[in-house]
This record gives sequence, C-alpha cells and structure tokens, in this order.
Amino acid sequence: MSTENVSAEQLRLFIERIERLEEDKKGVADDIKDVYAEAKGTGFDTKTMRAIIRLRAMNKDDRQEQEAMLATYKAALGLDD
Amino acid sequence: MSTENVSAEQLRLFIERIERLEEDKKGVADDIKDVYAEAKGTGFDTKTMRAIIRLRAMNKDDRQEQEAMLATYKAALGLDD
Repeated sequence: MSTENVSAEQLRLFIERIERLEEDKKGVADDIKDVYAEAKGTGFDTKTMRAIIRLRAMNKDDRQEQEAMLATYKAALGLDD
Repeated sequence: MSTENVSAEQLRLFIERIERLEEDKKGVADDIKDVYAEAKGTGFDTKTMRAIIRLRAMNKDDRQEQEAMLATYKAALGLDD
C-alpha cells in the first residue's frame, strides 16, 4: 500500500467513526424529543421544562445572580407588574 | 399522594430522563471532538473533514446542484481563478 493509500484509508476510517458517532448523537437527540413529546402529551409545558433544565444545570449562585439581574432589568422596563 | 404530588413526581421523572439523555448526548459530542483531535494530530485538516461529512450526508443530485451553484456564484464574483 502506498503512503497515499494509507492516508486515504486512514481518512476514511476517521470519517466513518465520526459519522457513526453523529448517528448516535442524532439517536439521543431523537430520544430527548420523544421524552418532551411524552411530557407534552401528559399536559406539561415543554418550554417551561426546557427553562427548568437550564436552571438546574446552573449552580445556585449563578442562578440567583441571573434571576436578580433579570428582576432588575424587568423593573427598569416596567415588566414587573 | 395528592394529585399535585403525583404531577410533581411525574415532572421530576421527565426532567431527570431528559437530563440523563442530555448527558449521553454530551458524551457522544465529546467523543466526536476526540476523533477530530486525533485526526488533527495525524495531520488531517478538520475543517475540510467537516466539509466532507456534510457532502457525504447529501444525496448526489443535491451535492452536484449545490456545487454547480457555488461554481456559478464564484465565477460571477471573480472567485474562480
């Protein structure tokens, strides 16, 4: 096998590994969509669920800081009624 | 268990399922990054690899159409030298 063929083969293997992993990622993303659909079917609001997941991913200090800033900006623009 | 508690419990289970799946997705995304890093270490250009993966995901007609349009626009703007 020439050096060029080895490189082409090596490249093909890298590309195929990535393509398999991209398929796995798509599979997991589809599973996530399914759970949201199931939750929606049960009556939950998925937009609010997404907001909760973002909040749970933050530490308490960051969350409180962000909520305080949001409250300040809301008050500044009269959105706090 | 009250209806409200059942709902809260149900919501918690949905949220936890999604969080576990999001972790899986992040794991796969990290694996993809690792493969790109390995390919880069071997001397491959990862930007070109990403372009190849996009092209392989398209069917031949779409790919040829897109390449023809790109060639036309490049010629129109003098980028075809």
